[in-house]
Amino acid sequence: MLTSSLVKDLNRVLPKNNVLSEIEERYVYSVDASATAGVNTEIADAVVFVESIEQVQEIVKIANKHMTPVICRGAGTNTVGACVPVHGGIILNFSKMNKILEINKESMTARVQPGVVVADLQKKVEEVGLFYPPDPSNLKVSTIGGSIAQNSAGARCFKYGATKDYVLDMLVVMADGSLIRTGSNTIKNATGYNLGSLFVGSEGTLGIVVEATLKLIAKPQCTQVIMAYFDNVQDAISSVDQIIEKQMCPTTVDFMDKNALRTVESFYPTGLMTDKEAALIIEIDGFKAVMDEQRGLVCQVLRDNNASGIQYSRNKQEADNIWSARRSSMPACAKLKPNVTTDDVIVPRENLAKLVKGIQEICSRHKLEICMVGHVGDGSVHPQIPIDFDDKDEYRRYKIAKSEIYHLTAKLGGTISGEHGIGLEKKAYISKVVEAGALDYMRQIKKIFDPNNILNPYKIF
Amino acid sequence: MLTSSLVKDLNRVLPKNNVLSEIEERYVYSVDASATAGVNTEIADAVVFVESIEQVQEIVKIANKHMTPVICRGAGTNTVGACVPVHGGIILNFSKMNKILEINKESMTARVQPGVVVADLQKKVEEVGLFYPPDPSNLKVSTIGGSIAQNSAGARCFKYGATKDYVLDMLVVMADGSLIRTGSNTIKNATGYNLGSLFVGSEGTLGIVVEATLKLIAKPQCTQVIMAYFDNVQDAISSVDQIIEKQMCPTTVDFMDKNALRTVESFYPTGLMTDKEAALIIEIDGFKAVMDEQRGLVCQVLRDNNASGIQYSRNKQEADNIWSARRSSMPACAKLKPNVTTDDVIVPRENLAKLVKGIQEICSRHKLEICMVGHVGDGSVHPQIPIDFDDKDEYRRYKIAKSEIYHLTAKLGGTISGEHGIGLEKKAYISKVVEAGALDYMRQIKKIFDPNNILNPYKIF
Repeated sequence: MLTSSLVKDLNRVLPKNNVLSEIEERYVYSVDASATAGVNTEIADAVVFVESIEQVQEIVKIANKHMTPVICRGAGTNTVGACVPVHGGIILNFSKMNKILEINKESMTARVQPGVVVADLQKKVEEVGLFYPPDPSNLKVSTIGGSIAQNSAGARCFKYGATKDYVLDMLVVMADGSLIRTGSNTIKNATGYNLGSLFVGSEGTLGIVVEATLKLIAKPQCTQVIMAYFDNVQDAISSVDQIIEKQMCPTTVDFMDKNALRTVESFYPTGLMTDKEAALIIEIDGFKAVMDEQRGLVCQVLRDNNASGIQYSRNKQEADNIWSARRSSMPACAKLKPNVTTDDVIVPRENLAKLVKGIQEICSRHKLEICMVGHVGDGSVHPQIPIDFDDKDEYRRYKIAKSEIYHLTAKLGGTISGEHGIGLEKKAYISKVVEAGALDYMRQIKKIFDPNNILNPYKIF
Repeated sequence: MLTSSLVKDLNRVLPKNNVLSEIEERYVYSVDASATAGVNTEIADAVVFVESIEQVQEIVKIANKHMTPVICRGAGTNTVGACVPVHGGIILNFSKMNKILEINKESMTARVQPGVVVADLQKKVEEVGLFYPPDPSNLKVSTIGGSIAQNSAGARCFKYGATKDYVLDMLVVMADGSLIRTGSNTIKNATGYNLGSLFVGSEGTLGIVVEATLKLIAKPQCTQVIMAYFDNVQDAISSVDQIIEKQMCPTTVDFMDKNALRTVESFYPTGLMTDKEAALIIEIDGFKAVMDEQRGLVCQVLRDNNASGIQYSRNKQEADNIWSARRSSMPACAKLKPNVTTDDVIVPRENLAKLVKGIQEICSRHKLEICMVGHVGDGSVHPQIPIDFDDKDEYRRYKIAKSEIYHLTAKLGGTISGEHGIGLEKKAYISKVVEAGALDYMRQIKKIFDPNNILNPYKIF
């Protein structure tokens, strides 16, 4: 009933092909890369493809009329159920709003629509000698809109920061259909409250970002990737501390544990050392003249910390080969069982070794396989757990382990998401790391921005 | 009346020496470095020095009881009237909460009280090989609390960002006296709304920051300062564009105009070239091995753009000498007339030459002297106008010029504060750059956080 009258209204403001209402179509767009999708959710009432800001405004007005949710969607790569409908509503798909509107070399900014794919933007800006650093691992398909919604980061965050550090200004369609600008197209801004930062990471619950101006930086002359293996996790982490003590700032300090090495090697063999406890993947960048010195310092520290199998890339192909091993961890895990879940916990780096050991212990106690990769520079870990969702007992053990991992993370002074967001998947756990008082202010902010609770409801808290 | 009963309550929760209520004492703490102070304001009813979070909470409760404002104050160096009382209230002075509580080398964080002086923190973290980049020009006296309140930046912002980029977590006393934690002590955080970013730059209007955890980075091995002169502003700005095209990212790209050069040279002679239209001061940093190459590239670009008098520092003393010329601009201007005002406008860098010329034209038309310095890399300009506030006609012309400068800034796609804030001084102009819709959301946020309007009221909007 809702659907038919809703679809009628949607068809009034959008070209016919831009409104999908068949059940198969609605199902396809009602899932994302999370384990939640399809489990605790109801499919959307309609899926729309927007092509202009005005169309987004019209859709929001229709949603208000029908008091039905609007759930924005880029590529649907998020792993926390951030863009799945819970009780129906309209999926607002941005794949047709995917234009890079301007790359301004002089002001070092890019103005983009939300549907722009991250890797496409990076390629375009690098063509003019500029650089957009945030690199979520799915950047070949994931969009800027999704990056903003989830405050995505990636391996380079250690040196270059997360999405929030690159959003200068946005146009946002609000819950009442009005359009606001959040900031200014300038590198610095101390003019009133930082509304922009409130939208970044708000998972589409406060407003719909329809255009963003992003800060770009100068492209580093060179990059080089170094890989090394360790017989224990603490040696790997100590290496990172000592690299920083040498006044270096690598682009990336990534990490794979023993199971991640073994799993990747068994499905995508490239000669990884599978008898080791951990590997580090360190990327350095900068001027040509300083690459040898930086690499020399890094390798010396690695050797001092009992690393073995130290290798480094001499060209882009070799660098890509090393990275592809690290990035194959999730697809490799997916081959072990019918499903695979990933997570995203982060602690102050001084507690990282304790977190990694603790997660291994929890999973072992609950008889779960676990592959761990992460951004050790940031103190960030992605535990990947292969699982069969149809195996009820395994699923039960998984849920307990997950809760224990969050509890441990909180105990170690960390938080339950560094770069993936909370979505539907983790909302039950947010109170482990955010106190009631702060959550209450968040809820009050939500009420101001979205009094009818139509913007991606039932997410975060 | 208010004062005596208020002071009685304040004395109940604070040691006697920590409450000042004599008129001379209240006057001293009711002014800041702005031109507004003492002009449109009433002095505070009381000045208190707090020594603990609990004391701050008690003060806020007393303020609620008396429905009187609480205005927080660090060193009072802000130039926009951000910490002056408008209709009385309590000045809450943080100079006794000035401890560095922890410097964590491994997690690369510093936990500090709001009264810590920026330069003191920088010195301490550099002793252990770490680096806190934000460098407001008054950093030898200004505090972290003030930096957070105003989202201060400084010359190094071009490479390293502003205060907001370094605040990981805060403890904040809210308007009802409760204490909340805004984030987590981790490098990344995608757990709920970014409450922290809302407080940074909110000028004490949303809550009282009583503790902050700051991100630190690795300290660069070397720094070097290069200075050069130009016969026209456009050549200076083109140099900056071309330096970035060479894939370099200098720490600092600062700027002085003709009048700034002349004024500094006449009061603090160091041999500046006073027949030139502009000077650039460029700081580079990084590994020793790459300093010569970087400097060579910069100097080549400067020569290609008709620079003259190119010089560079060979040690810290020489670097300090160059910087002291740039930093003497404001004190030198202050010698020209009984008063001096500074401002803080910013545009996308592509429009910077137009802004500089426009400001010169506006001041010339209104017969005002003007010295301009700024952070040209960011597109940021600080027009410094020497003035006699007792000269009614000059003051009238100054007010018109100021409004015209903001109007021009807005026309050029910029904003009226990049790093100083809005305070009392600029609140009449905020609507030139922030649309009514966005301002309305800011006001609603203020209402949630501070329903009785006791936290630094009458500021920003």
